[in-house]
Amino acid sequence: MDETIIRQLEKTKQAKKFMLTCEKTKKEAALTAIAAALKANTDIIVAENEKDVAMAGQNGISEAMVDRLLLTPERITAIANDVLKVRDLPDPINEVIRVIERPNGLVIKQVRIPIGTVGVIYESRPNVTVDISAICIKTNNVAVLKGGKEALNSNRILVKVINDAIKDILGDGCVELIETSDRDQIARLMQANDYLDVIIPRGSAALIQAVVKNASVPVIETGAGICHLYIDSEADLTMALEIALNGKVQRPSVCNAIETILVNEAVAEEFVPKLAKAFKPYNVTIYGDERVQGLIDAKLATAQNYATEYDDYICNIKTVKDVNEAIEHIYQYSTKHSEAIVTRNDATAEYFLSALDSACVYHNASTRFSDGGEFGFGSEVGISTQKLHARGPLGLQEMTSSKYKVYGKGQVRK
Amino acid sequence: MDETIIRQLEKTKQAKKFMLTCEKTKKEAALTAIAAALKANTDIIVAENEKDVAMAGQNGISEAMVDRLLLTPERITAIANDVLKVRDLPDPINEVIRVIERPNGLVIKQVRIPIGTVGVIYESRPNVTVDISAICIKTNNVAVLKGGKEALNSNRILVKVINDAIKDILGDGCVELIETSDRDQIARLMQANDYLDVIIPRGSAALIQAVVKNASVPVIETGAGICHLYIDSEADLTMALEIALNGKVQRPSVCNAIETILVNEAVAEEFVPKLAKAFKPYNVTIYGDERVQGLIDAKLATAQNYATEYDDYICNIKTVKDVNEAIEHIYQYSTKHSEAIVTRNDATAEYFLSALDSACVYHNASTRFSDGGEFGFGSEVGISTQKLHARGPLGLQEMTSSKYKVYGKGQVRK
Repeated sequence: MDETIIRQLEKTKQAKKFMLTCEKTKKEAALTAIAAALKANTDIIVAENEKDVAMAGQNGISEAMVDRLLLTPERITAIANDVLKVRDLPDPINEVIRVIERPNGLVIKQVRIPIGTVGVIYESRPNVTVDISAICIKTNNVAVLKGGKEALNSNRILVKVINDAIKDILGDGCVELIETSDRDQIARLMQANDYLDVIIPRGSAALIQAVVKNASVPVIETGAGICHLYIDSEADLTMALEIALNGKVQRPSVCNAIETILVNEAVAEEFVPKLAKAFKPYNVTIYGDERVQGLIDAKLATAQNYATEYDDYICNIKTVKDVNEAIEHIYQYSTKHSEAIVTRNDATAEYFLSALDSACVYHNASTRFSDGGEFGFGSEVGISTQKLHARGPLGLQEMTSSKYKVYGKGQVRK
Repeated sequence: MDETIIRQLEKTKQAKKFMLTCEKTKKEAALTAIAAALKANTDIIVAENEKDVAMAGQNGISEAMVDRLLLTPERITAIANDVLKVRDLPDPINEVIRVIERPNGLVIKQVRIPIGTVGVIYESRPNVTVDISAICIKTNNVAVLKGGKEALNSNRILVKVINDAIKDILGDGCVELIETSDRDQIARLMQANDYLDVIIPRGSAALIQAVVKNASVPVIETGAGICHLYIDSEADLTMALEIALNGKVQRPSVCNAIETILVNEAVAEEFVPKLAKAFKPYNVTIYGDERVQGLIDAKLATAQNYATEYDDYICNIKTVKDVNEAIEHIYQYSTKHSEAIVTRNDATAEYFLSALDSACVYHNASTRFSDGGEFGFGSEVGISTQKLHARGPLGLQEMTSSKYKVYGKGQVRK
């Protein structure tokens, strides 16, 4: 690995040790200082960000992407205020998770501790740089940030402002920005088990899959969302329409938006035309099965459609004969992010919620609630779609590990 | 991947879906049936095991290894009884972990569910085949077992007996034995993210590292144990001697045994000769620093010694000037498994327990207690030394994941 990166990682090793026992007041002082420094340095942050934005313009990057990259004074103030919100969340560190008393007198306390060094590989939005730094400091973790090269000037100034603000409180090495874009170097970073305790990829499906395939450091996989809504024969169809509309068009670009709506045959004739009408003002392109094509204007849906995360004003509508066929379909195509059922029948709902294997399953509510803020976590690192460590929205608690403190009076094993 | 393996993995996919909602009574009936079938088929299991043992003899495998391979009628009875013990442990599945009520009326229940399909790659001891199968069934998981080729005949008959016993209760595909020894096939298995939710390697450090490096399926790393004992200046030296002896010689071959004893300078002159004398009957080879060499007969310890997991009657003894130097040493050489301090001073103990980053940290007790049975978990899959998902002994609870069941009344996101 490049010497600069090794030097940075060696610094994080020391910082990790410091953070393991760093008191609450110091963490809070550091977060206060970061928020103040971001506000005080707004002009220079905007100036550096303008370089990235200008470069993006030259490279013909889409307007939407440029907007994701852009930092304005208002946005910087909002980012700084979010740091203060993270500061004020309940502190999960040192929480006693359980106490086990053994017949031999040993008292075993499972205590919440930081994960250690958290690597995050992400794209474009520079606010992620500050968000992750704040969440890591709050949870006594150290952050190793690999942002996208399109945001390098912005990320560099943000990390400098953060480190200048905290160096007298937490010392050096709590937040390190890895600046290389060399693929080989990044691959080595994913194999740096001596330094990193976890890697969290945030961004495109391609980025996430590259990290899953190449990392030997444990990964928390996030994000991919082919989410489903099933309208049962016993659904309140007015409610179903609202939830379908909310899931598909309120913000189609996000991972908890719906891609496929499964409609029970018994209500298809009434519901599908209503749905098509409600989608009309949003210009939603509809793919349907033959039954749906008999009811509304729709292209024929293929297996390829069912397996696609559109993140756009496009929707599959499929009729199913019962809840089991809905479950079968979801089991086959879901990325195990979020699914919902609309029904008045509580037994059918509980059956659906239990039979599915997804991180978040809803009865009579929109999948759009799969979000750290909406769950009351205050902040979010991403949405885990894997089974290990954490599922669904990753809040502060999910950024922790635990250890066992065992108290004895000289016990030895027989 | 080989077609046979794909066929097996496809079967586990169906079984995983079945197990997700399989009731408690069925799981318990399956475990009862397995125990009975093992006992009823003792003769044929012993006969198949004899083939492996004979082969091992021909291949010049050490007596200790052959003993690990050997199944006798007594051992089979013990293994069967362990299945019944697992059956009778508290069931973690469907436990409600937390309930969150949101201002908008959503009720979010985090519920414990199985991980799904658990791959285990392991060596020699065929009892692991039964242990893991029982733990997986108890926790509604499906087991994909890749045992060592030295135990192939034993594993094959054990899995056949298990599957014959449960096929009318749980159906097909809950326990699959992967028989290949082809490295390329095993590498593909480690990349089979579509089928496996986790891989747990059990065995040599080389095996574990190969899995960590090559798997894209999430891994729970287990086992490596360079454990430390620190004897403080305020230690009860009689207690310290007992704990040191227990940690080193009671069973040196296991991962929670001690490799290095750190002795505070203030008590070294009194303690080190006593320790050497106590080690004498066990022929413990001692590596010491120069101070220790001045007190007893010892070879000079190098950094290499401190970084070695001996798993044998070999011990490093090093003097340190205070608890901080002990922590520094442990921080540098520990595999983060288990460490202990002996001291009368509770403040020093708490400082030591908090400053270290290991899975299990002990005050006035032996590191040999780092074990699922000793923690009261009843059963154990291994000892996790990584930060994600689970740390320390992996009991039934650690073999679970969770999902959020969200109950609404038509809520949509604003």
